[in-house]
Order: sequence, then structure tokens, then C-alpha cells
Amino acid sequence: MKNFYYHIPTEVFFGKGQIENLAPKIGDYSKKVLLVYGGGSIKRTGLYEKVIEKLVSHGIAVFELGGVEPNPRIDTVRRGVKLCKSHEIGAVLSVGGGSTTDCAKLVAAGALYDGDPWELVLDNGKIKEALPIFTVVTIAATGSEMDRLAVISNMDTNEKLAVFSPYFHPKVSILDPEYTYTVPKIQTAAGTADIMSHVIERYFNPYEGAYLQNRIGDGLLKTCIHFGPIACEEPNNYDARANLLWTSTLAIDGVTWRGNEVGSSAHPMEHELSAYYDITHGIGLAILIPHWMRYILSEQTKPRFVEYAVNVWGVDSALPDDEIAKAGIERTHAFFESLGIPMRLSDLDIDETHFDEMAEKAEKRTKFSYVPLSKEDVKSIFKAAL
Amino acid sequence: MKNFYYHIPTEVFFGKGQIENLAPKIGDYSKKVLLVYGGGSIKRTGLYEKVIEKLVSHGIAVFELGGVEPNPRIDTVRRGVKLCKSHEIGAVLSVGGGSTTDCAKLVAAGALYDGDPWELVLDNGKIKEALPIFTVVTIAATGSEMDRLAVISNMDTNEKLAVFSPYFHPKVSILDPEYTYTVPKIQTAAGTADIMSHVIERYFNPYEGAYLQNRIGDGLLKTCIHFGPIACEEPNNYDARANLLWTSTLAIDGVTWRGNEVGSSAHPMEHELSAYYDITHGIGLAILIPHWMRYILSEQTKPRFVEYAVNVWGVDSALPDDEIAKAGIERTHAFFESLGIPMRLSDLDIDETHFDEMAEKAEKRTKFSYVPLSKEDVKSIFKAAL
Repeated sequence: MKNFYYHIPTEVFFGKGQIENLAPKIGDYSKKVLLVYGGGSIKRTGLYEKVIEKLVSHGIAVFELGGVEPNPRIDTVRRGVKLCKSHEIGAVLSVGGGSTTDCAKLVAAGALYDGDPWELVLDNGKIKEALPIFTVVTIAATGSEMDRLAVISNMDTNEKLAVFSPYFHPKVSILDPEYTYTVPKIQTAAGTADIMSHVIERYFNPYEGAYLQNRIGDGLLKTCIHFGPIACEEPNNYDARANLLWTSTLAIDGVTWRGNEVGSSAHPMEHELSAYYDITHGIGLAILIPHWMRYILSEQTKPRFVEYAVNVWGVDSALPDDEIAKAGIERTHAFFESLGIPMRLSDLDIDETHFDEMAEKAEKRTKFSYVPLSKEDVKSIFKAAL
Repeated sequence: MKNFYYHIPTEVFFGKGQIENLAPKIGDYSKKVLLVYGGGSIKRTGLYEKVIEKLVSHGIAVFELGGVEPNPRIDTVRRGVKLCKSHEIGAVLSVGGGSTTDCAKLVAAGALYDGDPWELVLDNGKIKEALPIFTVVTIAATGSEMDRLAVISNMDTNEKLAVFSPYFHPKVSILDPEYTYTVPKIQTAAGTADIMSHVIERYFNPYEGAYLQNRIGDGLLKTCIHFGPIACEEPNNYDARANLLWTSTLAIDGVTWRGNEVGSSAHPMEHELSAYYDITHGIGLAILIPHWMRYILSEQTKPRFVEYAVNVWGVDSALPDDEIAKAGIERTHAFFESLGIPMRLSDLDIDETHFDEMAEKAEKRTKFSYVPLSKEDVKSIFKAAL
């Protein structure tokens, strides 16, 4: 097991009606908050109105940054930063999914930074402070509500980059599974794939001593496999939504990778797809993961694939190892497909046009993953996924 | 899944050499620290000297509270409180196991309380603040290094009581698996049983919707089952010690019971054994748990026992449910026995003398457990364990 540092200061209020705790917590920090949200689904569901009412009745002035994109853009961050600076706003509240929260995080840091916020994306070390961040979560997917990560896109340069900062841990996150009832089936499926990818990309690591981490990973993955299909078919099933939501929060900055930290593989490849084609992150991941697995399966990596297939998918351990390993990969593919996810890049109108430049950018991170991937490796995986 | 609140502010430094982070962290809070430790094993291993050297070279004055008992006593807490008050000490550092940390926690609260610290044990709500608490862990067992719980004994009244406070979360905990190499075999076994009891007592809960929590519980229990015997046989096996240590920390105030919280059962019964006979906590638990399981197994509870046997022990799910459920219990008993734990109360020179009064006290808490246990139920379990 590798040495590690573990510190998750976020306060989580989980369950029905927990929104009651939001305004008093924000009020402890500021009487002016920037409300960050996406395309307006929170207006249709009534959550927008409810949040505003709670804040205002608590004496908190609300400023708004709406229209955050599914792959949040630096231009939107800049708008938020400007609002915070000109109105001397003291807190940032994200109501939405991971994109909204990621945008809120960078706004919170940008508000206390003198230069352009894109500089913080390019050099995370420049983030020395951030406004306090609060979240109300409306989809089980990224886990941004309890982690120190944000992913921001720059459409001018076709860049989608991960930003890490200890100042990005939200102060308080409200996780009410009922707020995820209205997530459409395909987004529920994509969110489930995103959660699973966060676990899987750490599960495949070279550290034999990090046994506990993968046993917890088994549990998180089994929960997705059990409840993903239920949530897709019964959107108002509380337990399915609750299990997926808490799994998503624990999957990324929780307990599955401290002690076995390894560079991501499918994520940097998917970030290139999103940066060029603005696709749904979880769908890109679901398409790439089985191909990535097939590509890296070797005599050396086989034991990890066997561990995965037997513990997560219940593949019969009496079979030959080759069969077990492949069965785990095929079960993964079939599961994503069963959720209704399109499983080929061509289904998303993606062709080979940008593969070369995308692979070149992805390589900067994939060369640090479990099985280091060169530009040519990444291209091969993209091509297999066409 | 039940509503819950999750907040674990403790900073954990895990792994070899992490002691380097201790003195600077304490120094951020105070230049005077109370060093709390037990029977002196840390002097034999050289850890005592190392800690003192780090603190002193960082300009921190060290005061000492040594001789903390395996079941820490209120008299010892009173000694520590007196030292803190008379020397205006601003931080408390536990170097040892759960007993030492539990004692340090109550000292930290008592130092900022005007009355006698036993009043805080009897009424946890009276704890309004505490000195900052730091820990260096030397045994994998209680998980006190990241939780909000302390257990304190009063030998005058034969009381051993749990104390809860949000102020008990340590600020910083140093978890170096190498410091647990010298834990004797029987204490390693008892610690493993203690960790497993923390998971098992939440695993058996009436909440069907809390699926994720039990899947994480499976992972923690499997880790104990895998590495407990290795640590007993190879005390210097780093990975075995590391996995047990991190499992112990996560098992009690981590992720296994948020959303399925249920009252303890074996713990309140064992606390009576320790309060009257001063036995090792984990050994008392290992003896009681299989008897408690046999006692509460019924048509109603059988599905949970089946879940436990199949997922944790790998019992063949094709067998009849009755056989599966019983096999899980017998595997639990056999496992504890295989670690060298004496499995009868009479092995510890405990007889029926105090069963009546012990059961009466235990009932105050066991009546809130998964299957509520009356005084007579507790007596029956004690008798079966003789």
C-alpha cells in the first residue's frame, strides 16, 4: 500500500428534506451568494424556486450565473468571476450536476485571483484560496460535491482540463435523492457509467498491497450494477437513486484510491472526445472503457482482470484465467449496452478526423496510467471504438 | 436508506515515516502538549523517544500522562485534566491504541470544562468544546483516531460508558503500519475481532435500502479475514498491518453505517464484561458475537444472515437458506478461534456471579439494537457463552 494523505472536510447532509440545512450554513459565511446552475431544468422541477426562497427568507442576497454548459466553459467561469468581483459576493452555490459544480469551483477560485481564471486551469498551484463553495446535487455522476477536482473546457483551444485544489472541497453538500428523480434515462445511464469509471480506473493499478481499496471498489461497482438498471426503469425509486447518489460521492474522492493512486486512462481519452465533440462525458467513458480493457489485457495485467471479473461480476473462478478475464470485460460492455448507451463512437457522429491531435493531447496524461499509453496506443483504442 | 449527516474532518497521514508531519501540525495549535500513553510499550519500541524528540525540536513543551489502562479510567482522565489546567496546555496527543486515544479525548474536553469530567460521560451534551486532539496509532482496533467516540470506565461504580461528541474528532492522526509490528499475536487477533465487530453490528440492521453500506462492509470484513491471520503469523508484514490499520479506521466512523444506523448489541454486552472483569475488549466481543448471532437468528432475520454468509464468507448460495445462515455464524466463530482467541467466558475466569446486574445495565442500550434484547435475552447470551 502506498503512503497517502486523507482529508475530506465537506459536510454532507444526505436524504429527504435536507435542503433545510442549506441557507443557515451559507449564512455562516456570507449574506451574498452566487447561484450557479445549468440549462434551466431546476426551474422546471421547482428546485430553483425552493432554493431562492430558502436563501432570501434567510436574508441572503442571490446573484445568478445560469446556463452553465454540460462541459462547462471558461467563458462562463469568467462571467461568474466578474459577478463575484463586482458585487463582492462571499459564497458560491452550485445547484445541479458535476458540470455546474465544477464551474462553481473555478468561479470561487477566480473570484479571489487577480488574473484570468484560465491561468488557474493551466497552473493549479496558482490557486491559493477560494470563496466557500456549497452544492445541491441533482444527478449521481461526478462526485464533484465532495472532491477537490474540477474539469473546465476551453472551446477556443479544444482543451478540456482537470484542475485540482484543496480549496475546491465544498463546505457543505446537500444530497437529496428525490432531486435526481427527473434525470432522464440516458443521463442516469451515463451517470452510472461515470461513477463506475471512477472506481474502475483506480481498480486497475499495479499495487498488490492495496487490497482493501479494491474490496471497497467491488462494493461500489456492485451497487451500480444492482441499482443502475432499476433507476433507469423506475426513476422515482428512492433506494435506487439514494444508493447511486451516495456511491457517486464516495467513488471519486472517497476511499477507493487512497493507497493505490494511479493515473487515469479512460478519462483523459474521453476528455478529448468531449473537448472536440461536446458529447456526454459518461457516454464517452462507457464506449471507451471496454476497448481500453481489451487493449491492455496481457499476461502481466491478467491477474487484475481476473480479480475484477470474479469479485465484481461473479464470473466463475474455476474457469481458465483467460476466459475469466475476457468475461469480465464483456460483462462490462454488455452492462453499459443494457442501460441503453450507444456503444460506438460512430453512433455519436465521431470519425477519425481529429484522432491524431486528440491522441497527442491525451498522451500527456495516459502515459502515467496503469498501463502507460502512447499516442499510437490511444489512436488504436479510438479506432477500435469507432 | 435513512437520512444521515456525514462529516469527518480529521486529517490522516498514512504510511511509513508520516510522523514527520506531527510536530508542525501540533505547533499550529499550541506550544504545549499533553502526551498521553499507556503501559510503556512505546518506550520499549523507541516511539516515545522519537515523538518527544520531534516535538521538542519543534519548540513544543511536552507534559506527560502515562499509564493509561487498557480500559481507560475516569481517575486517569482526572489526572490529565488537572495537568492541562495547571499548565495551560493547549493540545492533547495520544500515542497508543484506542484506550489511550479515548482517554485523551475526555481529557481534551475536561480541560475546558469547569466540573468533574465524569459529568461529561454521564451527559455528553455538556461537552461544548475540547482542546485539539492528535493521535499516533500503535494498534489496529478501535478506529478512535478518526471517530467522535470515547469509552471510559469508572471502576468505583463498575460502569463503562460510551461518550459521543463532534469535538472528539482528532485534528490529525498519524497511521504508520510499522508502529503496529510489535503488537503481540493475541492483541492482533483481538484487534481484528474488534474491527469486525464494528462492521458486523451495523451490517445487521433492518434497513433494506442501505445496500451500498453492506457492500462496503463486505469489503472491510473480507480484508480482516484475509489479513488478520497473516498479521498474526507475520507481525512485520507491512501490507497485512497496513490493510488492517486502514480498515480499523474506516470501520467505525467511516462509511459502513451512515444511512443504516442501528443501536449496538455485542458492544454494550461486552462493555459490561470489561467493566466487571477488565478483560480485553476484542476478546470479549469475539466470544459474544457468535452467541449473539445464534440467539437472534430467526425467520425474520434469516435473509440478513444469508446475505452475510454468502457475501462475506463465500458460502454457497445454492444451499438451503437455513444452512447458509448457520454456516455464516459457524464460520465467524471458527475464524475467531483460528486466531487463537479463547472462545468461552469461563476461559477468562468469568462466571455467573454478576450476570444479573450486568444484563440489567446492558439492556439500557441493547433494547435499541437490530433485534432488541431484554435483560433476560442478554443473560441467556452470557450463559451460552460461559
